[in-house]
Amino acid sequence: MDVAVLGASMTPFGERDAWIQELLADAALDCLDDAGVHPDALDHVYVSNMASGEFEGRTGVMNALVADIGATPAYAQRVGQTSASGGAGLYAAWQSIASDASEMTLLVGGEKMTHTTTGDSSDIIASLTHPVEYSHGVTLPSFAGLTARAYLDRYDVPRESLAEVAVKNHDNALDNPKAQFHKEITVEDALSSPVVADPLRLYDYCPVTDGSAALLFCPVSVAEQYTDEYVELSGVAGASDTHVVHERDDPTWMGAVAESGQQAFEMADCEPEDIDVMELHDMMTLLEPLELEALGFADRGEGWRFAAEGKTTRDGELPVNTSGGLKARGHPLGATGVAQAVELYDQLLGRAGKRQVTANRGLTCNVGGFGNCVTTAIFERGA
Amino acid sequence: MDVAVLGASMTPFGERDAWIQELLADAALDCLDDAGVHPDALDHVYVSNMASGEFEGRTGVMNALVADIGATPAYAQRVGQTSASGGAGLYAAWQSIASDASEMTLLVGGEKMTHTTTGDSSDIIASLTHPVEYSHGVTLPSFAGLTARAYLDRYDVPRESLAEVAVKNHDNALDNPKAQFHKEITVEDALSSPVVADPLRLYDYCPVTDGSAALLFCPVSVAEQYTDEYVELSGVAGASDTHVVHERDDPTWMGAVAESGQQAFEMADCEPEDIDVMELHDMMTLLEPLELEALGFADRGEGWRFAAEGKTTRDGELPVNTSGGLKARGHPLGATGVAQAVELYDQLLGRAGKRQVTANRGLTCNVGGFGNCVTTAIFERGA
Repeated sequence: MDVAVLGASMTPFGERDAWIQELLADAALDCLDDAGVHPDALDHVYVSNMASGEFEGRTGVMNALVADIGATPAYAQRVGQTSASGGAGLYAAWQSIASDASEMTLLVGGEKMTHTTTGDSSDIIASLTHPVEYSHGVTLPSFAGLTARAYLDRYDVPRESLAEVAVKNHDNALDNPKAQFHKEITVEDALSSPVVADPLRLYDYCPVTDGSAALLFCPVSVAEQYTDEYVELSGVAGASDTHVVHERDDPTWMGAVAESGQQAFEMADCEPEDIDVMELHDMMTLLEPLELEALGFADRGEGWRFAAEGKTTRDGELPVNTSGGLKARGHPLGATGVAQAVELYDQLLGRAGKRQVTANRGLTCNVGGFGNCVTTAIFERGA
Repeated sequence: MDVAVLGASMTPFGERDAWIQELLADAALDCLDDAGVHPDALDHVYVSNMASGEFEGRTGVMNALVADIGATPAYAQRVGQTSASGGAGLYAAWQSIASDASEMTLLVGGEKMTHTTTGDSSDIIASLTHPVEYSHGVTLPSFAGLTARAYLDRYDVPRESLAEVAVKNHDNALDNPKAQFHKEITVEDALSSPVVADPLRLYDYCPVTDGSAALLFCPVSVAEQYTDEYVELSGVAGASDTHVVHERDDPTWMGAVAESGQQAFEMADCEPEDIDVMELHDMMTLLEPLELEALGFADRGEGWRFAAEGKTTRDGELPVNTSGGLKARGHPLGATGVAQAVELYDQLLGRAGKRQVTANRGLTCNVGGFGNCVTTAIFERGA
């Protein structure tokens, strides 16, 4: 069965004075409104969320959402895949439609991170890694530093090329009213920001963010009853890598990105050269080039050239992270994979405002942990 | 696509000196062994778990599991639906096969509850309810007391009938080597145990439990290449009720049980009289009769007669909770819905030992929160 996306929305990302339940309901109601679909029509509701229990002591958020938007007795489920919970939600929603379990599925991804009622947010995020690594201080930001050092050394890569990723994504976010940051930065700003984990600095990392995003899925045949302005989810797949990063042959090769990408391309019956726009998971700047390599857009050790040579800007040949990416749109864990798809929905349907690029087909890549589990999805303009 | 269950296993339930990851891997490896399937064959791995982050500060358990059992690069995802996470896992696994996203899906449900590193287990469990209820002291056990009072009064039900549920389920668990309790109790024991929430007493409630359970799913056509001893998941559906219990017209009517049951019966093309054995969600004793009513096995206000009249014992006309149920097998939140299906797998294939009943078709009902979201599944002996 061909699966369509019939509506999309996201809340402003940033520091929000709202509980997770309010954030989820906001995006959900806006999405239903966008699609012109009544809550009664919903069969399934999925909530992509990493840690609402840990951040706010609330674990029934999917049940609360269904009630809050008036969709009872729709089935509710929470989808968890750490920082790739949103991408996993795309896959779950696709399966619900493709298996004919649901004819109308709402997916809402969200996270409330900037205030916690239950503990330290760094500890909560680090809970996704192996406890052996964490107990030795090897958290995600420090893994990023180690990996960046290896990459820069091995391929003799100029340090500035990573800063170019941050500069580009901040620049894109200037035109995204929902983005967390509206702040132009220069390569010099990035290279003089405080060191976090050598060689990476503050501007190499995404921020801590509150926010949510929503998408509405149905069979293409149903979508066509509502509108001829829809998007098709033509390929989606997920794959895992080792849970312990030091067990990998090469930490600069993202195996789960490669595997999920190959499967998604096969399912969508297309190749990298058919992709017009992408939202990649730039939790740290280096991930953008590493994903370009693993997905087959760049040779190994060459991904850094894309930002450095301007290929991935909005007027380049392959715009990447037109939304601002995790770096500047923000990264509310469970929301990110959904927000990536919201950006493509807007780009493919010509609703992206000042950020608009020319695109008929796009790709999202959402990374859990340090590449521990990844979902890649391919979207095309429908009809 | 017709979906088969090709293997099943569970760890002993009770107080276990093991981390959640060890519990999950134990059940997973036993299940693969049971089916004679190599980890390399797995496409998807789902982990049903409510709160490993809250109980033990670990949120990457699905990624850890895939690595621990040697199934990389299989896709990993966590399925959350509070105390019905296991039932939601059945539904997710079914969708993965029926949508052709996966040809071999492992589902592992587990929870480690008896020791927490991060907080109080009662607070963690209560996080699934609406915060307004919790802040007024209306937790799940107290809801149970209020509902039992309403039911006993309205239908003029003898108090002993609830004790009969506990006695029966404890009796069944005597023959289940994996059950938490191996302790015969009498109606008098139950009625003289300490009051928890009037009129309910200690023996009306399930315990706090550690444990895990696993099932292996594939298309029937694939199962037949391995064996003629398999089970078919012929119906599965989920539904929600209000998140705030006091918004329901009648708390003694389990609307989400009724809705999910109707959908599951329709999908499996059968009726209550076609069911030979059931595993119901007896978090408290009264839930067993309430589910018998909502699923259409008993008229409203009459469900209590089943245990009182001996219909639901192993030699009765409709054996319920032959495993011991949540009451005596134990209730490790995310494991329960999976363990219910493991019991049916064993019953339908004649592997239930001293607990064996005559059955070709069975039903599981897994309840999240106080009926907030429910999954009902129907299994049949295959081939």
